[in-house]
Amino acid sequence: MRLKKIITTSFLLSVLPALSIAAPSPSNGITYQEGWQNWATIAVSHRTDNSTIRVILGNKVAVEAARAGKTNPWPDGSILGKIVWKEKQLKSWLAGTAPGDFGHAEFMVKDSTKYSKTHGWGWARWLGLEQKPFNEGAQSCISCHTPVKNHDWVFTEPAQFPKGK
Amino acid sequence: MRLKKIITTSFLLSVLPALSIAAPSPSNGITYQEGWQNWATIAVSHRTDNSTIRVILGNKVAVEAARAGKTNPWPDGSILGKIVWKEKQLKSWLAGTAPGDFGHAEFMVKDSTKYSKTHGWGWARWLGLEQKPFNEGAQSCISCHTPVKNHDWVFTEPAQFPKGK
Repeated sequence: MRLKKIITTSFLLSVLPALSIAAPSPSNGITYQEGWQNWATIAVSHRTDNSTIRVILGNKVAVEAARAGKTNPWPDGSILGKIVWKEKQLKSWLAGTAPGDFGHAEFMVKDSTKYSKTHGWGWARWLGLEQKPFNEGAQSCISCHTPVKNHDWVFTEPAQFPKGK
Repeated sequence: MRLKKIITTSFLLSVLPALSIAAPSPSNGITYQEGWQNWATIAVSHRTDNSTIRVILGNKVAVEAARAGKTNPWPDGSILGKIVWKEKQLKSWLAGTAPGDFGHAEFMVKDSTKYSKTHGWGWARWLGLEQKPFNEGAQSCISCHTPVKNHDWVFTEPAQFPKGK
């Protein structure tokens, strides 16, 4: 009995951590981008029309293109991540708006061949802290992005950064 | 003559790249944090009182503390970077505010022993894209941070992130 308990406990301790970091399912056929939480910054934004505040992150290809100013078009292999929170007022600085509840993370994946039918980009979104995949198709993303169809379909204008290593 | 030219050219080609990425001088006695441009995000903010928009980045120690909610106090070894731009209106989305001209990068370096006289933090700032060191002392930073003296002197409330690798 004691041995069985030890074995069961060992089994749970070895399996549960793996389960807790299992990647979310694909969105619109696009694989979850594990590790995006530690990607570097391309820009930030605050949308007063829907009271959200955002950081726009990028994978290595995208960040290098952004810092070099080579983003129209973005190179194949670029992945942009837009991380969205509800806005909140900072208690310690009332004129400051900061991230409140987490909303969603959305991604644009550049591959001009693979995604030629959706303007060279794959479009994906995962909702909430549980990262529930959005699967209603790329068109709902694209329709909102039409104002920037001449800007490689990307709203983000990369922020200026001092040169560095 | 031709050999001299080749040697001079070789010399310049070997030295100039090194010069162009030489780290800026210290600020308030604190060494420049090379590579901060690729640090992960802790939060973002928009200050309507001085029309700036910011991303708050952290080194590995700070990001791990932030994601684990262990930031009061922040652990020794934490470095926070607040990157500040003038706000601008996004041309493609008029209700969107985004980074305009780069302003400055400021850093708080936690070492409760080394910086015991300045509330456990070293305070530094580098101005403009050329990253000119600010050297007017920590007190000018600290005086602005007094509203958060019970929050380990840090305004930033770490943003929620989905768990990940």
